[in-house]
Amino acid sequence: MSQVSGRIHNRALLGRVMPAGAAAAFIEPGSTVGMSGFTGSGYPKAVPMALAHRIEAAHASGQPFSVKVWTGASTGPELDGALAQVNGIELRLPYNSDPVCRERINRGEMEYLDMHLSQVAPMAWQGFLGPLDTAVIEISGIREDGSLIPSSSVGNNKTWLDRARRVILEVNAWQNPALDGMHDIYYGTALPPDRKPIMLTRPDDRIGVPHFRCDPDKIVAIVETASPDRNLPFAPADAACRMIAGHLLEFLSHEVARGRMPAALLPLQSGVGNIANAVLTGLASGPFHGMTAYTEVIQDGMLDLLDSGRLLVASATAFSLSPDAANDLNSRMEAFRNRLILRPQEISNHPELIRRLGCIAMNGLIEADIYGNVNSTHIMGSRIQNGIGGSGDFARNAFLSVFMTPSTAKGGAISAIVPHASHVDHITQDVQVIVTEQGLADLRGLSPRRRARVIIDRCAHPTYRPLLQDYFARALQGSYGLQSPMLLDEALAFHQRYCATGSMLSS
Amino acid sequence: MSQVSGRIHNRALLGRVMPAGAAAAFIEPGSTVGMSGFTGSGYPKAVPMALAHRIEAAHASGQPFSVKVWTGASTGPELDGALAQVNGIELRLPYNSDPVCRERINRGEMEYLDMHLSQVAPMAWQGFLGPLDTAVIEISGIREDGSLIPSSSVGNNKTWLDRARRVILEVNAWQNPALDGMHDIYYGTALPPDRKPIMLTRPDDRIGVPHFRCDPDKIVAIVETASPDRNLPFAPADAACRMIAGHLLEFLSHEVARGRMPAALLPLQSGVGNIANAVLTGLASGPFHGMTAYTEVIQDGMLDLLDSGRLLVASATAFSLSPDAANDLNSRMEAFRNRLILRPQEISNHPELIRRLGCIAMNGLIEADIYGNVNSTHIMGSRIQNGIGGSGDFARNAFLSVFMTPSTAKGGAISAIVPHASHVDHITQDVQVIVTEQGLADLRGLSPRRRARVIIDRCAHPTYRPLLQDYFARALQGSYGLQSPMLLDEALAFHQRYCATGSMLSS
Ligand SMILES: CC(C)(COP(=O)(O)OP(=O)(O)OC[C@H]1O[C@@H](n2cnc3c(N)ncnc32)[C@H](O)[C@@H]1OP(=O)(O)O)[C@@H](O)C(=O)NCCC(=O)NCCS
Ligand SMILES: CC(C)(COP(=O)(O)OP(=O)(O)OC[C@H]1O[C@@H](n2cnc3c(N)ncnc32)[C@H](O)[C@@H]1OP(=O)(O)O)[C@@H](O)C(=O)NCCC(=O)NCCS
Repeated sequence: MSQVSGRIHNRALLGRVMPAGAAAAFIEPGSTVGMSGFTGSGYPKAVPMALAHRIEAAHASGQPFSVKVWTGASTGPELDGALAQVNGIELRLPYNSDPVCRERINRGEMEYLDMHLSQVAPMAWQGFLGPLDTAVIEISGIREDGSLIPSSSVGNNKTWLDRARRVILEVNAWQNPALDGMHDIYYGTALPPDRKPIMLTRPDDRIGVPHFRCDPDKIVAIVETASPDRNLPFAPADAACRMIAGHLLEFLSHEVARGRMPAALLPLQSGVGNIANAVLTGLASGPFHGMTAYTEVIQDGMLDLLDSGRLLVASATAFSLSPDAANDLNSRMEAFRNRLILRPQEISNHPELIRRLGCIAMNGLIEADIYGNVNSTHIMGSRIQNGIGGSGDFARNAFLSVFMTPSTAKGGAISAIVPHASHVDHITQDVQVIVTEQGLADLRGLSPRRRARVIIDRCAHPTYRPLLQDYFARALQGSYGLQSPMLLDEALAFHQRYCATGSMLSS
Repeated sequence: MSQVSGRIHNRALLGRVMPAGAAAAFIEPGSTVGMSGFTGSGYPKAVPMALAHRIEAAHASGQPFSVKVWTGASTGPELDGALAQVNGIELRLPYNSDPVCRERINRGEMEYLDMHLSQVAPMAWQGFLGPLDTAVIEISGIREDGSLIPSSSVGNNKTWLDRARRVILEVNAWQNPALDGMHDIYYGTALPPDRKPIMLTRPDDRIGVPHFRCDPDKIVAIVETASPDRNLPFAPADAACRMIAGHLLEFLSHEVARGRMPAALLPLQSGVGNIANAVLTGLASGPFHGMTAYTEVIQDGMLDLLDSGRLLVASATAFSLSPDAANDLNSRMEAFRNRLILRPQEISNHPELIRRLGCIAMNGLIEADIYGNVNSTHIMGSRIQNGIGGSGDFARNAFLSVFMTPSTAKGGAISAIVPHASHVDHITQDVQVIVTEQGLADLRGLSPRRRARVIIDRCAHPTYRPLLQDYFARALQGSYGLQSPMLLDEALAFHQRYCATGSMLSS
C-alpha cells in the first residue's frame, strides 16, 4: 500500500502502511495497549475502531476478547467510547471522561485505575503497572530520519513508544503541519538512583527535542487517517461562572497589591471544565499583563488570553479546544506556534517544576467539606465522575491552590459544600482558597475550626448555610475531639438524604 | 554578664548574654514566635520556660497573654508542655506530639495548624502565615565571624532567623561540639519566579554551608544553657513489630529479585514511631548492603543500621534519639559525623528531591480503609493525635510509599482497617503498600475494588475480617456507584460503635 498523505518521509517505513483493520490484528486479547490521546486531542482514530470491530466479532462468536488500555488522559469517542461499547476494555488508566466508560466502571464491569497524571510514566518505567505490549500513537508525520512529529497532544507518548514491544502509528493528515516545532520532548528522565535535576526555570524554557524517537524495528504498522480531534464545546459562561471569575480576580489583585504576588502573577494552571475556562476568559479583560501559563491543557480561554496579548506563553501537554477554537487555531497556527509549547505530561505536571515555578493552580471540584477537604472524583462517595487527573500534581505543589465550583449542583438539590466529604482527593493542606458564586474563602493560616466558619459563611449557598451552621455548632458540642469537629452519625447525612429523596435539603 | 560556656566566640555578641527571664521579656503578648526544635531535639529549653512563667504571672494578675508558636515539628516538654500548661499558646504549627498541647487542641482551647513540613518555610516566605516577630533558636555555639553553629536539629531555623524581626539565641553547652560540620544549610531558596533547581542528586551531596548566618543587629539576647535534649525511649520491638518488619523485608527482597529495585535499595525514609524504628533494626540483619537514607529524623534504629555498616550515610533534618542512643552518639560523634547530614526541613522533605532520589517511604498510620485511604492524624475523624508531619511530602513523591500498622489498636477494640477512613491524609494514589502483622498488601496497579479484596484478606485482623468482607459484599450490591463501593449508612459504623460501646466489634 502506498501512502496518500505525503507525510511519511522515511522510505523504510513506507512499506509498513496498511489499513486499520490489518494493524489492529496485531493486538492480542488480554494484552496491554498504550494509546496516545489527552482530552479529545491526538488520540488514534482508526485502529481503536478497527479493534472494536474485531472484539465485537470475537464476542459474537463466543470468544472472550478485551484489552487493558493506558492513555494520557481522557480521549475521544472513537477510542474509549468505541471500545467500551463492545465491552472491550478490561482495565483503563489513568483518567476518563467518556460516558460509556463511566457507566461501565460504575456498574462494576470495567476496572479503572485513577492515577496522578505525572506518575503514570514513572510508574510504568518502575515496572509497577506490568508490561506494555503495543503502543498505538497518533502523530502528524514521519521525518526522513524516522523521527516522529507529534500531533495535538503529547501525553505519555514518549514513554509508550519507548516501553512497548511493538508500535502502531496513525499518521493523521488532519493535524496541522505547522504543529511541527511546537513540541518539547524531554529525553532526560531516568530511574533512580540516576535521576537528574530537570533544568527548566521558566514556562517557555525548551529542554528537549521537537520529535519522538522510535526504534524502527518495533514499528509493525502505519495507518493513515484524516480525522478531526473531537472535543466538546464549552458551555457559554453563565452568571455563576462570571461571579466565580470575578471573586478570584479580585482576590488576585489584592494579593498583588499586598506584594504577595508579582504584578504579572505567577504561571497559571487552569483545570478542565467550564468554570476554569470562564476564569481564563475573565483574565483576558482583567488588570494583569505579561502573564504565563504552565498548565496541563490549553483550552479556548487560554487562546483568548493569548490573543489579548496579556498571556505571553503557555506550556501544556495537550490542546483541549472546542471545534470552533480548533479551527481558529489551525488557521493561525504559525502565529501561535512560538508562544505555545507541548510537553510530555510527566513534565507538564512534574512536582519539581510546579513547585519551582510557583504555579497558581485553579481547579474544579465536585464537593468540598466545611474544613476544605476536596472531592474531585466520586459522586456520593462511590460513583466516579472523571478522575483526579493532574489536580493532585498541581494542588499539592502550587504556590497557591484554588478550587472553584458553583455552590450547588443539580438545580439546587445538591450542595457543593457538605459537612464531610464523601471521598477525599485533596486534603485541607492542599486547598488554600475555595471560590463559589457566593464568595471566596481565603483559608491560609487558619485552623480547621476557623476554616469551617469561613467556608460556610463565604461559599455555601444560603439555602444550605443554616444546615451547615447547625451541624457545625452541634459538632462543637458532641465531637470525639475538637481539632476537626465531626458528628459521626450525621457526617454523611446530606448524601444519605440525596440518595433517599433526591435532595440534600431536609424535608 | 559574661559567658560561662566558652562557646560564644564573637566579641560583639558577648554583650548580649543575659538570663532567660530577661530574654523572654522581649516577647510581646499576641506576637508570633518561631522556635527551633524538631522532635525532642534542638529546641530552646530556657526561654520558653521563662516565657511560661511570665504568662502565668500575667494570667494571675488578670492580664491576657498568649503567643503564636511556630516550630520545626514537635519539641520537648520545656517548650510545648510548659507553654500549654499555662494556656500560653494561641496557635501552634506545624506538628505536635506534646500531650498537654494535644489535650488543649482537642478541647478546642488552642488553634492548631497542621501543615506539610516541607511547606512551612516556603509559605512563611510567601507571606501566607503572617509576620514573624521573634525567633528563639537553640544553637551549639557562635563563631568569631558571628555565624551560628546549629545544634541537634535544623528544622525551620534558617527561615526563622531570616524572617524574624528579632532573634533570641540559646547556646546549649550540652550539645556536642563535634556536631560542627555535620550540617548542610542551603541558602539557595527564593520566591518564584526566581526559584532554581536544587542541585542535589545523592543523599550525601552537600549543597550548602555548615553554619547559619544572622544579622547581628537583630540578635537581642543570648541565653546560655546546658540541658539535654529530651526524646522518649522507643518501646522494644514486640512480636507485631517484628512481623511487620519481616513482611516488608521479604517484599523488598522480592522487588530486588524482580529487578524493580537496586540491590542496595533506594534511599530510605523512615517515619516516626516504634514500628518504623523496628523496621530499621530489622534491616540491620537483613540482606541489603550499601544502603542510604534520605529521611526526616534519625532515630535509634538508623544508628544501629549505620553501626552495622549496611547503611552508608543518612541525611535528615533532626536527631530523634532515645536518651541511651543520644549518649551513645555523643560518645562517638567523630566517627558518625561524616556519615550524617542535617539539613533544613524544606530540603530534607522537598518534593523535588524525594521524587528525584526515589525514596522508599515507610510511615505509620492510625487507620486505613479498604481502598487504602490512610488516616495518619485524626482518631475517630476528629481528635488529632500528632499531625501529618512529613508523611505527605514523602508518600506523594516516593518511588514506593509503604504504610505500616498493627492490625488493631487498644487491645483489639479498634480495627486499623475500616470500611471508610474517618479522615483522610493520604489518598489511595499515594499508598502502594500496606503492612500489618497479618501480612502485606501490594496495591500497585489495582483498581479500588481489587485493592479492597487484597487489603481485607492480607491486612485485617481475623476478628474484623468477616465484618469487612460482609460490608464490602453488601456495598457491591447497594452502592450509588461501583468504582469505590460505599454504603453511606454504614461507612462510619465501626467508629460509631467504638464511640458508643468502646469497641468496633458488633455486639
Ligand atoms: C470536578 C469536575 C468534574 C468539575 O467539572 P466542571 O465541568 O467544572 O463542573 P460541572 O459543574 O459541569 O460538573 C460536571 C458534572 O458533575 C456534576 N456534579 C458537580 N458537582 C456535583 C456534586 N456535588 N454532586 C453530584 N454531581 C455533581 C454536575 O452536575 C455535572 O453533571 P452532568 O454532566 O450530569 O451535568 C472536573 O473539574 C474534574 O473532573 N476534575 C478532576 C480532574 C482535574 O481537576 N483536572 C484538572 C487538572 S490539570
Ligand atoms: C500514625 C502515628 C500516630 C502512629 O504512631 P506509632 O508510634 O507508630 O503507633 P502507635 O501504635 O504507638 O500509636 C500511637 C497512639 O495512637 C493510638 N492509635 C493507633 N491507631 C489507632 C486507631 N486506629 N484508633 C485509635 N487510636 C489509635 C495508639 O493506641 C497509641 O495511643 P496511646 O499513645 O494512647 O497508646 C504516627 O506514625 C504519626 O504521628 N504519623 C504522622 C506523622 C508521620 O507520619 N511522620 C513521619 C513523616 S517523616
